[in-house]
Amino acid sequence: MITGRELEEARRYAAERLAEAGIVLTPAERDAIEVADFGLSRLEESGLQLLVYVNTDRYCAKELVLRPGQTGPEHRHPPFDGTPGKEETFRCRSGLVYLYVEGEPTTDPACNPPPGAYTVSHEVELRPGMQHTIAPDTLHWCQAGPDGAVVSEFSTASRDELDEFTDERVSRETVVG
Amino acid sequence: MITGRELEEARRYAAERLAEAGIVLTPAERDAIEVADFGLSRLEESGLQLLVYVNTDRYCAKELVLRPGQTGPEHRHPPFDGTPGKEETFRCRSGLVYLYVEGEPTTDPACNPPPGAYTVSHEVELRPGMQHTIAPDTLHWCQAGPDGAVVSEFSTASRDELDEFTDERVSRETVVG
Repeated sequence: MITGRELEEARRYAAERLAEAGIVLTPAERDAIEVADFGLSRLEESGLQLLVYVNTDRYCAKELVLRPGQTGPEHRHPPFDGTPGKEETFRCRSGLVYLYVEGEPTTDPACNPPPGAYTVSHEVELRPGMQHTIAPDTLHWCQAGPDGAVVSEFSTASRDELDEFTDERVSRETVVG
Repeated sequence: MITGRELEEARRYAAERLAEAGIVLTPAERDAIEVADFGLSRLEESGLQLLVYVNTDRYCAKELVLRPGQTGPEHRHPPFDGTPGKEETFRCRSGLVYLYVEGEPTTDPACNPPPGAYTVSHEVELRPGMQHTIAPDTLHWCQAGPDGAVVSEFSTASRDELDEFTDERVSRETVVG
């Protein structure tokens, strides 16, 4: 659950970070920033602010904003409608974000996940101008560095409701639009 | 033909405009900025600077940079490989850009095309934070306003070599990568 006050505060935070990164929004877009707590009611620990620019049947582009240390829970994008599932590229615009993906576990990673089910720990550090593409149907999670992060996401069509989370307590349906 | 000097000057211009818009590039990306004169050898009149972030079989994201008054010639993205052709969204980041697309001709449009074959004149004005999606296989061209423009392009897979230009003198193969 996200309270109305949490929603407004999270939207304000996201709009400010986007503006600092030089990203101009229309007033309607500012009011359409989505906030997800993934059903955990611990928004500052596990959560995400996002603005969807476009999401057609074929491609999608968004901006993601993370608070300092905020985590996006581990999930994958399964196949649907005869496609291999969502393929996505994260490009860091400001701040610092760590991605954790399938592969050789990183020794002494920069982040600890919050309580919950996390199984992949191959670390990819993204600073402004750096990007990483995640293959369809592969597990990943992320955590922002100490100053938060603004991250552009380019992808195939986004169908958030199909995301499969490792932690069965997590749900994606709590995005407040 | 683009001379080496034109290429370097166009890359420098594009890198500066991107930096002003808050867009961080890696040094390798700065050196990978592409410059197209569309085979017309009048780069400041008809041309484009672009940086491709990602172009998979399924989606693509780029930044486009236009000089003041610079025009991207009229073209369409035809079907290929069983797909409807490239669908793309232009989002203005800085400056001002006019798109001209199929539809009711605009009375007293803001731009005049350069010499050549131009047939569509429905005007869409894009200022920072504004965006427009162009359907596959439909004609379009663009011209930057008096201060140039930085425009993000989100799309399905990009296959520039398949673009069909209205003006048969125009070619897309002259991009210098």
